[in-house]
Amino acid sequence: MPKVSNKGMQMPESPIRKLVPYSEIAKKKGHKVYHLNIGQPDIKTPEVAMNSIKNLDIKVLEYSHSAGFESYRTKLSQYYKNHGLPIDVADIIITTGGSEALLFAMGSTMDQGDEIIIPEPFYANYNGFSTASGVNVVPVISSIDTGFALPPISEFEKLITPKTKAILICNPGNPTGYLYSKEEILQLADIVKKHDLFLIADEVYREFTYDGDVHFSVMNVPGLEEHAIMIDSVSKRYSMCGARIGCIVSKNKALMAAAMKFAQARLSPPTFAQIASEAALDTPQSYFDEVITEYRERRDILVSELNKIEGVKVAKPKGAFYCIAQLPIDNADDFAQWLLESYDLNGETVMVAPAAGFYSTPGVGLNEVRIAYVLKKEDLIRSVEILKEAIKAYNSK
Amino acid sequence: MPKVSNKGMQMPESPIRKLVPYSEIAKKKGHKVYHLNIGQPDIKTPEVAMNSIKNLDIKVLEYSHSAGFESYRTKLSQYYKNHGLPIDVADIIITTGGSEALLFAMGSTMDQGDEIIIPEPFYANYNGFSTASGVNVVPVISSIDTGFALPPISEFEKLITPKTKAILICNPGNPTGYLYSKEEILQLADIVKKHDLFLIADEVYREFTYDGDVHFSVMNVPGLEEHAIMIDSVSKRYSMCGARIGCIVSKNKALMAAAMKFAQARLSPPTFAQIASEAALDTPQSYFDEVITEYRERRDILVSELNKIEGVKVAKPKGAFYCIAQLPIDNADDFAQWLLESYDLNGETVMVAPAAGFYSTPGVGLNEVRIAYVLKKEDLIRSVEILKEAIKAYNSK
Repeated sequence: MPKVSNKGMQMPESPIRKLVPYSEIAKKKGHKVYHLNIGQPDIKTPEVAMNSIKNLDIKVLEYSHSAGFESYRTKLSQYYKNHGLPIDVADIIITTGGSEALLFAMGSTMDQGDEIIIPEPFYANYNGFSTASGVNVVPVISSIDTGFALPPISEFEKLITPKTKAILICNPGNPTGYLYSKEEILQLADIVKKHDLFLIADEVYREFTYDGDVHFSVMNVPGLEEHAIMIDSVSKRYSMCGARIGCIVSKNKALMAAAMKFAQARLSPPTFAQIASEAALDTPQSYFDEVITEYRERRDILVSELNKIEGVKVAKPKGAFYCIAQLPIDNADDFAQWLLESYDLNGETVMVAPAAGFYSTPGVGLNEVRIAYVLKKEDLIRSVEILKEAIKAYNSK
Repeated sequence: MPKVSNKGMQMPESPIRKLVPYSEIAKKKGHKVYHLNIGQPDIKTPEVAMNSIKNLDIKVLEYSHSAGFESYRTKLSQYYKNHGLPIDVADIIITTGGSEALLFAMGSTMDQGDEIIIPEPFYANYNGFSTASGVNVVPVISSIDTGFALPPISEFEKLITPKTKAILICNPGNPTGYLYSKEEILQLADIVKKHDLFLIADEVYREFTYDGDVHFSVMNVPGLEEHAIMIDSVSKRYSMCGARIGCIVSKNKALMAAAMKFAQARLSPPTFAQIASEAALDTPQSYFDEVITEYRERRDILVSELNKIEGVKVAKPKGAFYCIAQLPIDNADDFAQWLLESYDLNGETVMVAPAAGFYSTPGVGLNEVRIAYVLKKEDLIRSVEILKEAIKAYNSK
């Protein structure tokens, strides 16, 4: 029998999806499961986006340009400029989700055995894209005790080898909710310039900042033009996760030429979703104001409720819609499984993502979980109540 | 300045797209260009597919399952069974176009430096997917003199090394239009079983066969279950190239488990397009009857018109909608560029794809072009007329 590739065997399983069989058990028992584990928002997609598809009048569903429809790229460039990001049409290639933008970025900057430094905990699929690209992830640990701030630059420098080609950050962070300050971004800019590296910034949660904090993009650093690669997506901005539309952005011409060859090989990003994404650019500001207000309130409730549980430590998120919570338990993997398999509070339980899957270093984050605040407030309150009782029950087993 | 990866530099440029700047020149001159170079059909997308999107009533455009919507996979399995292909729901992962299915197939079966044998000329993007996957293409030359039939199995055996992991075929073939016979598929089945290889069959043109010839799928070979990987797509079947929906199909459980990990990393295939693809399964048979009749008539006209030109040799296609024509010229690359840049017949010219880009062996196919018969009949007749006069003018320069 022919064998699967080593790469195929080494591809990591999603840390979230491996709990799915246990959530099926909970559902079979008739238990209601509050999903705090996934980043699928319940927020409505803007009507202007959905209507663009309903009103479509095309006879042949054709390929678009491999870089995406020019009309979309033109409008997107204007959107960025309106938001203070100096991004030209030529700096943009539309991709099939932020996922494909990350694959293009890795493929264009790194070869088999090259290394990418990523502050951990990090979005788990960075591991998958790295394995698929033959690239080794070198983690730098950030800690809940500093709210997951950027680790000291000296920690990065210790890890740089001739194989290091890039540093990858997620800002604001999934799973941490941390928003890097301008100073932190400038520190990263200095180190990538000093060592001739790329700085890949996954900025798909850019709009989701709270408390008046302002997002500072890698595209805004003077002198970083040849190093900066921005990853973006419509998934969270417009609650259009199913569109699978993102983009890779850079002013480095050689990098964009390489990325374009990857883009040409797969022909084009999806046509329907590009049309909807272009229309979504006309979403009124009131939509975002409401959404951000809603998320800020959810965050505040989640954090204050979690802080009422003895022994729980939370890093208050400054952006995105996730937080990491340290729980007074030994093993969050086991706890998360137990919550689904063996626990309920009046027929209800919660599903959380064990944080160990977001760390690349073994044994780190074992007592942490990631919580996505993508549920409405009353559900978040109830979820934390369940969590509180569950911790008691789990620890007195 | 940080450097682009070797992989990024080695990624091949599309042999078709490199002519685009010259087609811009022709258009600037006000010349009408007949596009014989691309596989974008002018056939209408079935209304049942387009209407499914227009009538959509969803509030949140959510991710689907990473393997695609279950309802779509279930219906697709039934579609295959109705067409004599014993494919179960568990054998299918929905992908973002046939392109992603090929990437998953390569990633799941091959590691850096492994080898894949492909009869050439072959679909040019197989080169891109191979480079992106770190895999080396080992070509077996098929010839216009045998109509691009399967090369003798002894030619394959000569090329098999411990690094060989798979044989890849396109059936019916792009760019050749060749349809492998049942006997040829069985020969390939024997050799992959003997050498423990995968047989990857790109069958996206399955429905496009003429003259009563019947397509024989790798999924129909008894005993090949652990070796056969089928690549499929809605792009050509329903003239839905812009949907970017395909699938990878196999009964090899380990292979599908590996492919699923690649699928999970990129979250999901596009939602809108999956809905349209599911609806497209209800396309009435009359649609296909009309489309196949149209393509057969186009093929017959194209081939008979081409045969009227002195010195032209054509391999009559048995399937798909491409043919390779050998022209009485030295260098088709130069000729194709000259057609756009310097030639017109009463303000009109043609764009063809030089076939050298479909060969992996340097120096082969230099006097061949690929012609896609995706234009209506009168345009095909006019295109060949232009080609005939152009050849005369080119050779008397």
